[in-house]
Formats: sequence, structure tokens, C-alpha cells
Amino acid sequence: MKKAVVLLSGGLDSATTAAIAKSEGFDILAISFDYGQRHSRELESARAVAKSLGALDHLIVQFDLRNIGGSALTADIDVPLDRDESKMSADRPVTYVPARNTIFLSFALAYAESSGAQDIYVGVSQVDYSGYPDCRSEFIKAFENMANLATKAGVEGTSKFTIHTPLINLTKAETIRRGLELGVDYSLTWSCYQGREHPCGRCDSCRLRISGFEEAGTKDPLIYE
Amino acid sequence: MKKAVVLLSGGLDSATTAAIAKSEGFDILAISFDYGQRHSRELESARAVAKSLGALDHLIVQFDLRNIGGSALTADIDVPLDRDESKMSADRPVTYVPARNTIFLSFALAYAESSGAQDIYVGVSQVDYSGYPDCRSEFIKAFENMANLATKAGVEGTSKFTIHTPLINLTKAETIRRGLELGVDYSLTWSCYQGREHPCGRCDSCRLRISGFEEAGTKDPLIYE
Repeated sequence: MKKAVVLLSGGLDSATTAAIAKSEGFDILAISFDYGQRHSRELESARAVAKSLGALDHLIVQFDLRNIGGSALTADIDVPLDRDESKMSADRPVTYVPARNTIFLSFALAYAESSGAQDIYVGVSQVDYSGYPDCRSEFIKAFENMANLATKAGVEGTSKFTIHTPLINLTKAETIRRGLELGVDYSLTWSCYQGREHPCGRCDSCRLRISGFEEAGTKDPLIYE
Repeated sequence: MKKAVVLLSGGLDSATTAAIAKSEGFDILAISFDYGQRHSRELESARAVAKSLGALDHLIVQFDLRNIGGSALTADIDVPLDRDESKMSADRPVTYVPARNTIFLSFALAYAESSGAQDIYVGVSQVDYSGYPDCRSEFIKAFENMANLATKAGVEGTSKFTIHTPLINLTKAETIRRGLELGVDYSLTWSCYQGREHPCGRCDSCRLRISGFEEAGTKDPLIYE
């Protein structure tokens, strides 16, 4: 079996992406990040998802983006609540972490090269774009191009790295439908920006998830506050 | 004064690069990495160099590449000694760390974006290329292109990130001459792959440094074993 590195946050999108990678014939090497986010609840979910999909390995890379600052996800800035979706996409959200996906994909590339994988899966979507520049296909293409110049494998032409973004043009509801077809257990996933016992239901991430399940015509297995 | 993020390893090249950034009118935001390399001797040198150049700030990002493996710099593989230069460039050296410069530049990008800097300096050279794919100008150009698609600043066109590589076409001897013109104190720098009290003089990095000083017709202030 070919191996693929899959970025796994513990959220709904990355769990679906991992299930898609598996359905496309890859053994999964999961990679997650402990980067000073507000809570580690999502890492517990990432572990549970990796296990449920039979991942070959699960690497958790630890570093601290709090020193770099600039985001409500890592600094002492309030996560916005109760915004409607038009507001979410109007501007770069305060939950934007500078260059986060660039950093995540760089570690995934290192992991792929050192483990002999040529494929990297990441669950970004430009439909629910929400003002994150590093969730667009132009960015992903530019990263892939760079990756093939950055590495021995790419330069020698012995292999070529491919960044797969199976959700790039899917709405949240379409993602959920695809995941349910593949048997993803969404009760294992976590989307809330806050790390309490139950998801808040009010942050941007919860609101997108809730409306995604509504639109998909199915019930979110999580219990909200 | 404009600010520039400078990747500072504590070695000769990055110290020279920082001095060039300063001579080009930038205030320096230094960034170094504690990534599980064999020794922290070079981080002490990075601190000393940052201080000597009056850096505004010095960020040390900590993460662990040992879990990813695949290099004599982070894993339990012997650093090769006493190789001649033709051998060094013949193949990817065992000191190659997968995607290292990609990871380093990604953090530098995050730091630049969050601190309002548009310029990043990195001391790579494709003359002393030594089989590192991520030291070539093609890679740097591809990274710069990606950086401007990855970030809010780049996408909105409010600013454009530039990756400066002032050493890219310089030999080690030319780098040393340029540094000496700018008053770089090379006694503060450290190049040896091993972290003993004095540099070994036998690893690839020491050998390139020694022959660089010889070719520049000047004396290396470091005392070798």
C-alpha cells in the first residue's frame, strides 16, 4: 500500500479528508500540531480519529506560535461569537494564524520525504473560505510547486509530491455527506474554537458545522452547550 | 527604519547575511531554531551575533525534528569527517534535514507577517551547494511566490514579501570578505557540526569554513581542536 501524510486537526474536515485518502488506497500517516492553541481538546479528537481509521502512525509536532502572536487562536484575544456567515467571510478573521497552513504543510513535507510518502492530504476548502488566504487552491498549487524544488526527491525527479485537497470545492454539507458515505464517525471530531466539555455552538467554527449538518439533512452527533 | 526578519543559525553565513541586511537599512528581527540538532552551541552563537548587530528582537522557535528523522544532524547517525570537497557535493549529504529550510522560512514568514515586516533574509548559497536542494535560487523564488499567496498581506496586495539571499552566488571566501568589510566579528560564529568546546576542523562545515578563510587570505579567529 502507498502511504500518504494526512494533516489531522481533529475537526470534521480533516477527518473526512483522512477517510477519503484511505478510500483512495493509501495507508495513513497522520500528522497533528500542538502549537499553543487555546485548548488541546482537538488533539484528543485527532488521536481518536487516527485510531478509528487505522493510521500507520500519528506524529504530533509541538511548537509554540504564541511567541509569534497575532491570532485569537493562540493569543489572549476573544474568539468572536454569534456572527452571521456574511460577516465571517467579509474580512480576515481574528482567528487567522499567520502562515499557519504554510508551517503545517512544511512539516508534512518533511514527514513525507523522510518516510517515503509522495502524497499529502489536507482538508482545506475555498468554499467556506472565511478569509483564510492559505485555504485557496492557488496557494496549494504554489506550495506543491515549491515542495518539488525543496526536496531531494523532487529535484532528482525520483518522485513528485502531490498535495491533495479533496474538499477544496465542497461546501460543509457536501463534506459531511461524503464523510457519512465513507463511514466517518463525526462524534469523534471537534470543531469548536473553545475547549470546554461541550462545543459552544456560537463561534464561527461551530456555526459553520451546525449549518452544514442542517443543510446535509442529518443530525450532528455532538451535544452543544 | 524598515524591519527585516533574518534567519540566524549562529554560523558564518547567517551572521554575514544579518550584517548585509543592516547595511541595507533594515532593523533586524532575528529568528533561530532549536530543533533537536546535536548541540545548542550554535544557538549561543546566534544570540551573540544578534546582540552584536543590535537586533530589535530575537525569536527562538523550538520544535523537534528528531521525531521526523532522516538526518545526521538530528538522528543518531555519524557526521562524516575528513571528506574532500568533491565528495561533499556529489550527493545529498547525510546532514541533509528533510524540508528544513522550508520549515525555517515558513516560521520566518509567520514572524514577518505578524510583525509587519515585508523582507526576509536568508544566508543560503548555491555555490557551496553541497547537495542541499533547498539552498538554490529556484527554490527560494518558488517559496517567495507561495508566500505571497499564503498571507493576508500578499493576497490583499497591501504588501509583498521579498526573500533576500545576498550570498546566493558568493563563494565562502567572498562571503567572508564581504563580512569583514561590514565588521562582522567571526569569533562569535560557530560552524562545526559537532558541539564540543572547540570546532573539530574535520566535518564538512568546518572544512568549507577553513578553506574559505584560507582563500580569503585571512585568519579564522576560531581555535580548532
